[in-house]
Amino acid sequence: MSTRSADQTTVYWAEHAWIGGLLTPARQAESVTIEVRNGRIDGVIAEVADVPKGAIVLGGLTLPGMANTHSHAFHRVLRGAEPVGAAGADSFWSWRDQMYEAANRLTPESYGRLAADVFTEMLQAGYTAVGEFHYIHHEPDGRPYDDQHAMELAVIDAARSAGIRITLLDTCYLRSGFGSASVTDEQRRFSDGSSENWEARIESLARAIRGRSQVRLGAAIHSMRAVPLDDAAVVVRWARTRGLPLHVHVSEQPEENRQSQKHHGATPTELLSNAGIENLGGPFCAVHATHLSDGDVHTYGRTRAFISCCPTTERVLADGISPTGALAAAGARLCIGSDSQSVIDPFEELRAVEMHQRLATGRRGTHTPAALLHAGSVDGYQSIGWEKGGAIEIGALADFVSISVTGARLRGLTVRDLASGAVLAATASDVHHVVVNGDVVVRDGRSVRRPTGLDDPLGPAS
Amino acid sequence: MSTRSADQTTVYWAEHAWIGGLLTPARQAESVTIEVRNGRIDGVIAEVADVPKGAIVLGGLTLPGMANTHSHAFHRVLRGAEPVGAAGADSFWSWRDQMYEAANRLTPESYGRLAADVFTEMLQAGYTAVGEFHYIHHEPDGRPYDDQHAMELAVIDAARSAGIRITLLDTCYLRSGFGSASVTDEQRRFSDGSSENWEARIESLARAIRGRSQVRLGAAIHSMRAVPLDDAAVVVRWARTRGLPLHVHVSEQPEENRQSQKHHGATPTELLSNAGIENLGGPFCAVHATHLSDGDVHTYGRTRAFISCCPTTERVLADGISPTGALAAAGARLCIGSDSQSVIDPFEELRAVEMHQRLATGRRGTHTPAALLHAGSVDGYQSIGWEKGGAIEIGALADFVSISVTGARLRGLTVRDLASGAVLAATASDVHHVVVNGDVVVRDGRSVRRPTGLDDPLGPAS
Repeated sequence: MSTRSADQTTVYWAEHAWIGGLLTPARQAESVTIEVRNGRIDGVIAEVADVPKGAIVLGGLTLPGMANTHSHAFHRVLRGAEPVGAAGADSFWSWRDQMYEAANRLTPESYGRLAADVFTEMLQAGYTAVGEFHYIHHEPDGRPYDDQHAMELAVIDAARSAGIRITLLDTCYLRSGFGSASVTDEQRRFSDGSSENWEARIESLARAIRGRSQVRLGAAIHSMRAVPLDDAAVVVRWARTRGLPLHVHVSEQPEENRQSQKHHGATPTELLSNAGIENLGGPFCAVHATHLSDGDVHTYGRTRAFISCCPTTERVLADGISPTGALAAAGARLCIGSDSQSVIDPFEELRAVEMHQRLATGRRGTHTPAALLHAGSVDGYQSIGWEKGGAIEIGALADFVSISVTGARLRGLTVRDLASGAVLAATASDVHHVVVNGDVVVRDGRSVRRPTGLDDPLGPAS
Repeated sequence: MSTRSADQTTVYWAEHAWIGGLLTPARQAESVTIEVRNGRIDGVIAEVADVPKGAIVLGGLTLPGMANTHSHAFHRVLRGAEPVGAAGADSFWSWRDQMYEAANRLTPESYGRLAADVFTEMLQAGYTAVGEFHYIHHEPDGRPYDDQHAMELAVIDAARSAGIRITLLDTCYLRSGFGSASVTDEQRRFSDGSSENWEARIESLARAIRGRSQVRLGAAIHSMRAVPLDDAAVVVRWARTRGLPLHVHVSEQPEENRQSQKHHGATPTELLSNAGIENLGGPFCAVHATHLSDGDVHTYGRTRAFISCCPTTERVLADGISPTGALAAAGARLCIGSDSQSVIDPFEELRAVEMHQRLATGRRGTHTPAALLHAGSVDGYQSIGWEKGGAIEIGALADFVSISVTGARLRGLTVRDLASGAVLAATASDVHHVVVNGDVVVRDGRSVRRPTGLDDPLGPAS
């Protein structure tokens, strides 16, 4: 996408920046020169006296790029949809029916267009990498597409056209629930029929996408309700062999735990433990982890698992509040995801992790802003298989996000506390520039790659 | 502020609008002409074929103006401040120490400037009326200002310069807690010394502001911990005699309930009941009402009390989740407030009322988007003493708010569901035009009255 030669250095200058976090302690610095070469940060110099000649100036506060570690791009079509049924009678499960209906309308073409819009919205909001938890593999009747990877490539190409870094978390989904032998009609396009078929398909997909830049692959078990124990073990083995990330929806709703206990006398986390997640090598990420036992918390802490917190979705879907304070204290590593796309805003997502703890405990400050920033960036990147990302530091991926600090929301913050103030008070609308892989992909709040893709939020509608 | 003659008609045309709500059922209508005369709506015609000649065009969706029924403008200085103390050791009470420190720095001049900025931010976010719960009456040492109304007039004039409709809820604050005889040093400027002094001062204030347009007065009891029973009865009587609103912080934290039980063997709501709130005449509004007994819920339902829900503050301050579902079912009328100013966004505030119920109950749809809109507009206006406001309907105050529906957040909504979609997904950043008392006070997202008051949120910082 760039006309400069591959080994040319691009220089950015940030008025304020949140630097470090990987090799050095993270801190806010002023007047920071960031040198970029081949998509990686090649130099970071703080407190420079002057803006370097020819530098791209980033006003306000520049933060590391945020990783959206749990996305279902197509859920965006349900944004703003009212709950169905009588007042207060709607639940996660009736929402899921709406979601299935949306899922079954998608074609590779329509999904590609939709995903490109959603990924563009993510970039404009400050997400520079996305873990797409992808399970719509086949035709609505379950038959493979003529190009068996049509759906996966549609999503991957959407990310590339938008300019966001993507990890496709290719999902194994085999049954409708604990004790069921297969999927329901509306789940047919999710299922490969067997874990062996899933493995053959993802192996083929790995070959198909080889050489695509800014694209990685990971594995996902939809949930222990959707994948039998033996099949889960196949997915775990595949991830371990490849050293790639493995993500799983875990205990999102109490009903999942009840069914797991009924059929196996164990929690979903205990089943995953038995399936081998504790010595995975690559990152293991439990998504939601809303309803955990003390033992589950201990397991994730001891193994330093990643926990993908999706609090804006967890409130929209009435999932409940994850024990993120206990998880972090035990040693688990938090990260964030926009999941249902009800909200695409890393700032809102990060602070919601802390706000939900405040609601649940009556105490303030379980997660500091610095810890939340680390969750959104460094740990988020690592959880989706990008080991050196989410940091403004030498050697890291050149992904960063600049926000205005003079708008209505952030004006008046003390200069030394801009980064923590941003976590507590910024929104996606404060983002002005976004850089991915060294290239400006959002300028003045608008996508450079897809300038007409998303209209101006201000101004009369046409 | 306007050059047109007082009885001239201004015509607006809204692409889509949420009309009715006072005399007729509320509904979304398309292509709506809104005629305004003398600050009131004089005609509403839906489904007009053409934009009337000379009309001011409002693209997207036009909603009734939102009432911010619980504001402490000066809390804005604490936005983005980290909790103090060790991780997880901070609470509402340590936050309050920070807030007192901020309160004691204010002068009439600095408070006026700050409040004008905060009220401008409110307008730009879609709030067209504010109930300012005001208790900083005196010099820091407790002596009256030479002009005894210096602080009250600073706040009122700030609202007038910003262009927002204001109800000053003049607050009685006499002691530091249940069982205490007086205030602490840092509360001295809040106290009039006695309810008689409070009454004399508010009577004088009522005379001082007579004739100021878009300004009304109401009474407030800070809380039952801050006002003895006999003094609370004086404030209740004053509000009843005047027919003006009475607002009270009620059961925000469990500790307030414990102290109330210890000293009186009753809940704060029961104490208020004894003080006479049940036959007030004018609106009674319980602010927060986070920790209520079943009897308290019944009292507020039976008396059709207003409940000012401030969920974004209630999560920031770790207050907990109010039983808004039970309150609404019992007959209480919900409204919203930005309170601590951590968030100034009526859309976020409205949906947070529902989202917190989802977190607390595991069910979705306790409050419909239409019910939330009614809470934010019609009931909000009424709770702060503007009987015919918050509706696009003949005879109502000409206060309304237009949002873009083509920006990244709202694009893709079905046209017939724009209003409910806005409640579930819009943010303050989607607001483009705001009309108060018939005049455009925000255009393209910026204040007309104070164009340099708040900088552009996008673009590099200077």
